[in-house]
Amino acid sequence: MKIIVINGPNLNLLGKREPTVYGNNTLEDLENYIKNEFKEKIDVEFFQSNYEGAIIDMLHRANDEFDGVVINPGAFTHYSYAIHDAIRSIKTKVVEVHISNIHQREEFRQKSVTAASCIGQISGFGFYGYILGINAILNFSE
Amino acid sequence: MKIIVINGPNLNLLGKREPTVYGNNTLEDLENYIKNEFKEKIDVEFFQSNYEGAIIDMLHRANDEFDGVVINPGAFTHYSYAIHDAIRSIKTKVVEVHISNIHQREEFRQKSVTAASCIGQISGFGFYGYILGINAILNFSE
Amino acid sequence: MKIIVINGPNLNLLGKREPTVYGNNTLEDLENYIKNEFKEKIDVEFFQSNYEGAIIDMLHRANDEFDGVVINPGAFTHYSYAIHDAIRSIKTKVVEVHISNIHQREEFRQKSVTAASCIGQISGFGFYGYILGINAILNFSE
Amino acid sequence: MKIIVINGPNLNLLGKREPTVYGNNTLEDLENYIKNEFKEKIDVEFFQSNYEGAIIDMLHRANDEFDGVVINPGAFTHYSYAIHDAIRSIKTKVVEVHISNIHQREEFRQKSVTAASCIGQISGFGFYGYILGINAILNFSE
Amino acid sequence: MKIIVINGPNLNLLGKREPTVYGNNTLEDLENYIKNEFKEKIDVEFFQSNYEGAIIDMLHRANDEFDGVVINPGAFTHYSYAIHDAIRSIKTKVVEVHISNIHQREEFRQKSVTAASCIGQISGFGFYGYILGINAILNFSE
Amino acid sequence: MKIIVINGPNLNLLGKREPTVYGNNTLEDLENYIKNEFKEKIDVEFFQSNYEGAIIDMLHRANDEFDGVVINPGAFTHYSYAIHDAIRSIKTKVVEVHISNIHQREEFRQKSVTAASCIGQISGFGFYGYILGINAILNFSE
Amino acid sequence: MKIIVINGPNLNLLGKREPTVYGNNTLEDLENYIKNEFKEKIDVEFFQSNYEGAIIDMLHRANDEFDGVVINPGAFTHYSYAIHDAIRSIKTKVVEVHISNIHQREEFRQKSVTAASCIGQISGFGFYGYILGINAILNFSE
Amino acid sequence: MKIIVINGPNLNLLGKREPTVYGNNTLEDLENYIKNEFKEKIDVEFFQSNYEGAIIDMLHRANDEFDGVVINPGAFTHYSYAIHDAIRSIKTKVVEVHISNIHQREEFRQKSVTAASCIGQISGFGFYGYILGINAILNFSE
Amino acid sequence: MKIIVINGPNLNLLGKREPTVYGNNTLEDLENYIKNEFKEKIDVEFFQSNYEGAIIDMLHRANDEFDGVVINPGAFTHYSYAIHDAIRSIKTKVVEVHISNIHQREEFRQKSVTAASCIGQISGFGFYGYILGINAILNFSE
Amino acid sequence: MKIIVINGPNLNLLGKREPTVYGNNTLEDLENYIKNEFKEKIDVEFFQSNYEGAIIDMLHRANDEFDGVVINPGAFTHYSYAIHDAIRSIKTKVVEVHISNIHQREEFRQKSVTAASCIGQISGFGFYGYILGINAILNFSE
Amino acid sequence: MKIIVINGPNLNLLGKREPTVYGNNTLEDLENYIKNEFKEKIDVEFFQSNYEGAIIDMLHRANDEFDGVVINPGAFTHYSYAIHDAIRSIKTKVVEVHISNIHQREEFRQKSVTAASCIGQISGFGFYGYILGINAILNFSE
Amino acid sequence: MKIIVINGPNLNLLGKREPTVYGNNTLEDLENYIKNEFKEKIDVEFFQSNYEGAIIDMLHRANDEFDGVVINPGAFTHYSYAIHDAIRSIKTKVVEVHISNIHQREEFRQKSVTAASCIGQISGFGFYGYILGINAILNFSE
Repeated sequence: MKIIVINGPNLNLLGKREPTVYGNNTLEDLENYIKNEFKEKIDVEFFQSNYEGAIIDMLHRANDEFDGVVINPGAFTHYSYAIHDAIRSIKTKVVEVHISNIHQREEFRQKSVTAASCIGQISGFGFYGYILGINAILNFSE
Repeated sequence: MKIIVINGPNLNLLGKREPTVYGNNTLEDLENYIKNEFKEKIDVEFFQSNYEGAIIDMLHRANDEFDGVVINPGAFTHYSYAIHDAIRSIKTKVVEVHISNIHQREEFRQKSVTAASCIGQISGFGFYGYILGINAILNFSE
Repeated sequence: MKIIVINGPNLNLLGKREPTVYGNNTLEDLENYIKNEFKEKIDVEFFQSNYEGAIIDMLHRANDEFDGVVINPGAFTHYSYAIHDAIRSIKTKVVEVHISNIHQREEFRQKSVTAASCIGQISGFGFYGYILGINAILNFSE
Repeated sequence: MKIIVINGPNLNLLGKREPTVYGNNTLEDLENYIKNEFKEKIDVEFFQSNYEGAIIDMLHRANDEFDGVVINPGAFTHYSYAIHDAIRSIKTKVVEVHISNIHQREEFRQKSVTAASCIGQISGFGFYGYILGINAILNFSE
Repeated sequence: MKIIVINGPNLNLLGKREPTVYGNNTLEDLENYIKNEFKEKIDVEFFQSNYEGAIIDMLHRANDEFDGVVINPGAFTHYSYAIHDAIRSIKTKVVEVHISNIHQREEFRQKSVTAASCIGQISGFGFYGYILGINAILNFSE
Repeated sequence: MKIIVINGPNLNLLGKREPTVYGNNTLEDLENYIKNEFKEKIDVEFFQSNYEGAIIDMLHRANDEFDGVVINPGAFTHYSYAIHDAIRSIKTKVVEVHISNIHQREEFRQKSVTAASCIGQISGFGFYGYILGINAILNFSE
Repeated sequence: MKIIVINGPNLNLLGKREPTVYGNNTLEDLENYIKNEFKEKIDVEFFQSNYEGAIIDMLHRANDEFDGVVINPGAFTHYSYAIHDAIRSIKTKVVEVHISNIHQREEFRQKSVTAASCIGQISGFGFYGYILGINAILNFSE
Repeated sequence: MKIIVINGPNLNLLGKREPTVYGNNTLEDLENYIKNEFKEKIDVEFFQSNYEGAIIDMLHRANDEFDGVVINPGAFTHYSYAIHDAIRSIKTKVVEVHISNIHQREEFRQKSVTAASCIGQISGFGFYGYILGINAILNFSE
Repeated sequence: MKIIVINGPNLNLLGKREPTVYGNNTLEDLENYIKNEFKEKIDVEFFQSNYEGAIIDMLHRANDEFDGVVINPGAFTHYSYAIHDAIRSIKTKVVEVHISNIHQREEFRQKSVTAASCIGQISGFGFYGYILGINAILNFSE
Repeated sequence: MKIIVINGPNLNLLGKREPTVYGNNTLEDLENYIKNEFKEKIDVEFFQSNYEGAIIDMLHRANDEFDGVVINPGAFTHYSYAIHDAIRSIKTKVVEVHISNIHQREEFRQKSVTAASCIGQISGFGFYGYILGINAILNFSE
Repeated sequence: MKIIVINGPNLNLLGKREPTVYGNNTLEDLENYIKNEFKEKIDVEFFQSNYEGAIIDMLHRANDEFDGVVINPGAFTHYSYAIHDAIRSIKTKVVEVHISNIHQREEFRQKSVTAASCIGQISGFGFYGYILGINAILNFSE
Repeated sequence: MKIIVINGPNLNLLGKREPTVYGNNTLEDLENYIKNEFKEKIDVEFFQSNYEGAIIDMLHRANDEFDGVVINPGAFTHYSYAIHDAIRSIKTKVVEVHISNIHQREEFRQKSVTAASCIGQISGFGFYGYILGINAILNFSE
């Protein structure tokens, strides 16, 4: 079983960016944490980009190469109908994850345009949300 | 450790109500499924009501009697500021769960007024979402 | 054939409450009037509550015990998505009735969130609207 | 007693137009059905037009020539303030009827601009709604 | 000099329709009043229709046959972009007149979609508004 | 003279709930404070419920049993049209009170749907607002 | 008979300000033009101010000292509820006049908050609109 | 193969009306141009009306008499839900055409309520858009 | 202790202006009534102006010269962000008072832009509201 | 003559992505179809990218290298003001094409922010829409 | 060269008013700071008022007496269309300045109704923004 | 001291693109102009991209390599929450600059979603705005 974790814009700055919101751990920490949790069980790969186009390309590739996608589209969550369409265009299961609880934040962050084409959305549990997201892919059957 | 799972209005009809949306299993099935998953690990109790007031009362009781709450407020999600306030009034961790992906449904179901006072929200993974919700309480530390 | 007539909040004050809008006859008058109209033809029962939860419970019961429901949800018409869901959850035919013409009143009364899950809606014919509602159940076939 | 039933635009295509919404019976079927129901009791006449102006003219004539109007303004329901004004300009009782439940359809069909100047509105009971509408005129006293 | 006064839907019922808003005088009274005011000075003709199309046709004819138009589009004021376009399509001066003060009435009557293509608008002075409108045509030079 | 003070949802947690907003004193403290202020002058009774239905029932009872009502509807303030109707249905004077200044808080708390059917509203003066509310009932004559 | 013409903010710059919109003639030209039109018939006085407060004061004075007011509130038209209230507070007839056709201009200029408390509004006829406004006062009887 | 080209309100003034927007050629020029393009290939007929009702009647007739409809509903595009319903009521293929690019014009012209019931919409290519529209009917298969 | 009562635009016409809304007593009556209530207890001064600027100046002066302000900003309540800022700029306690219940009136009067910078707001108790306002200043401690 | 056809995000998945909406043919099929239609007449080149920036770069290049652009901006249609500006920045004629009829789809797809800077828009004719688009460039003269 | 710096309502309280937003320096400090920066180069004068009318008068005077205006309209920025018109009425260059970054503050402060008639707007650089504003006047040529 | 000037989409076409809005000078002219102004004082570098992702990457690099950023995000200003987040994620001072006065342009250009995370915004002074922006970085201290 192969899962890819896709992180969107500015998540490469995790640990440096607004630590009161996103915590002090880096993207590398996040990736190690996830790998550790699932080691010897499933194969998890990682991708981060600040380019909407690169995220779409990767989602397309996931259609053939991965069994599941956990995506945190960062700010693209709130306006990228192109990512929304990309998720809808592929057959691989996609789960949307947010580190912070988007319902507690600015007005514009409370609307996700990408969630409607995912299986579901998980929001507010810090890094642990990614673990929940992978578990959702492993255990959820429509 | 004691967790209470609160289900809101019409969830007593699970299995009978709109099976294409909510599946064929009953509320009892859901409760047994959750108990099974966590048996010998934690103590899970269950509460369902079609009364907003009864849900608020139970949330208040949870403050003293439980270590965590997983709540699916049903249709109250979309207008019960009283439940929103009740969650904010207590110190117990509360996680919001929805069986279906609310982002794929009617306009009115895409806005949650209760999620902002929870730790986080999980939406779209069927009954498994409750398992994710309890795990979130067990593993998430702010 | 068994029909239940459900009246929502404040309709227990009929005859006392804003007589220019709702007339001078009481809830008891209304119930007697309906019984008289259908006596020896069908069995009509009555329920009134100011509790949203009690109305939902009764709708659930109607699923097994009644062949039709005529409901005047009172002010719940305009915000109770929980009653909307309850009606959608049952198989019994439900007809929404309003004593006054809601299209002639305050802005907030012109939108019904419950009508979409009923067979249809009747608004503006005073007590006679209930008679129309029962006739609709008796005569309408989808 | 003389009643006129006015049907608005596209209702001449009944039976041909979107049968899943409006059924398989034609306008002629509808008119015969209504006549049959009330034969020997009241005098019912019929009018259909795709012209807003013709409907207004007929409403004006109804003021002198008829004791009641049952109107299904079709799509004019949603924007014809001129028909709204015409109904308000006459003393004859007017009842608005819709074959389908407009609350279950497109956003634009959920708002009636004409209902506010009628006695009341009946929506969702197929052809039987016209029978209810005539009964409402016969039995309703303000 | 030739002026045409165009009255829109329901204005044929002047004197009968909502006298508290529109007064007790009829359309004929209005037309005689106007003729009297301008007799021996200018040639005034009159047109009333409940058909949007007939009003558009008359506006087109006015382009060749009249030096000015005073129009009270009635309820068409609030949604007839076709009349708006018709006025913009002709070179004859057009003035919009309303008997009542539309700013004091229902929300929907406070927006005119036709006024933007007229020279100007006069609202609230009863029948006298038509006299003002003709004077505006006679005396206004851009 | 008999006054009833009705407190809505979550106000039973006063002193425990968000003390920076609502202070450190409990509901019991509030009730004693009010009783003390008016002792030997008027008879003040108290009611608190998290059930919308129970509050409506109590308002109906107040019609016969009390000379005035001071109500803090809590979160129901912002959506309970049923309580709005209940207040309008009774003849007893009703005054709305809020502990915090609702105009300084979240968007949703700035609109009261219940205030329009009260005599007036008092917002922002802590517990002292209840004293003002009772004084308003005692001294205000329309 | 005494009439006062009140001009609001920036109208002192007439002739200098945006001549394509307001023409090349000055406020003095306007005042002379009006005086000339009505000389030996009625007494017309003039007032211009850029202060909302001064215009309110003058409207109050008009209650005792004038038989009619023609007011061009300039930009205050679009937000001064205080002037709206001032007009409503007095018994003298008030007519609102605009030099340009406000329906052809920016969105914000298409809504008048002051017109609702006037007898009526005249918009789009240049300086001649003031003549129409005074004639309206002289000839209009409610 | 028989095609009908329906032109809506004010298009009879083509060549006279706002030539900077619609060009200098007349409706007759347009009709000749279209006929020339398709002569000896298909049979093209033409209809123009300023009456919404007449356009609906013609659409109904097209159901039996034509294989395709190219319609430019003029200003009706933006509010005629009756034409929207008429197009949906018939089986003949309908294509909507606009001479100007409606996306570059006033706010109200940017929304088409009729396009949703057509096969598709073509906007902005002058008279040539009608040629494209007929080609679309000839070549498009769902 | 020194309190100033500030009344905004048109309140100088109290007793003359819309007596069904504001009563028959004058501003002088109001001021005498207040003085009488608090005589020998506190020093109350009065200020009324129709100028927004004068009210801002007086609020600034209040910062140094008064211990509390009771303000009825009249129509400025609904748009004067400048008064909102002035209240926020000073340390003196400010209470907003309205004679009528603004929640029962026009849409525009239901939003206060000034209340958010006051301690609280009192609305609907006639002249007695000012007494409540002064008591609020005397007795409220944050 | 040289034309470039630009396809936006997710159109590389044509034939795989939502075949009920977009059909079963691939992007390569589309490109061959277009080439075939115009072979020996004009030179058509193709470009597809999921990167907004790459599409903007190509539009800039088109200014020098191509005589016309047919663009299907995919989901960028609905939010990319940067592409809107890019089209406005170049002199080459640009035509917008959509495979499906965007007026029949989700709310967000009914608004094009890019169409306003194109010559025109063609929507709803499947692959044939591209042929229409190229013909529009070849035949349309402003 | 003569420049005038106009400060609007509440800016006379600079240094006292909300120092976390506006800093600890007074209006006098600001004026001295500006004078110092430009001494021996240009002539800078200062004006502050809490009266909208006084600011409009000063803008009118600036037309004849100054070569440039730097204006901080304070809260008037957000609703004074009269100041917007005053700026548009004069030929002197006007630059709008805000001490704080209005895009980071309350919703209502994020819209400027006055900026559209200025050359440009500078927001967020504290007192230094005024220096930038004067430099903009000195160096900008349209 | 090192400053980077970032220009967003389509600004590479400066001098060619809409010269009435953006002038006749090219991006190279702009860069030379800025370099000249600050030569021997500070080190200014330049970056332009039509890729949102590339701009985010450069902002991240700026965190380590530059002391200040002047950014003109072009059309990204109006929807790129990802750039908004990128600016908020870094500690380097960022100033937003626009060549034209965005408050005078299309509705969509009047809202900046990026300005809220900058120190401040400068809009409307042509190329000189960049000089102001760099000066703001050099001289502004929070």
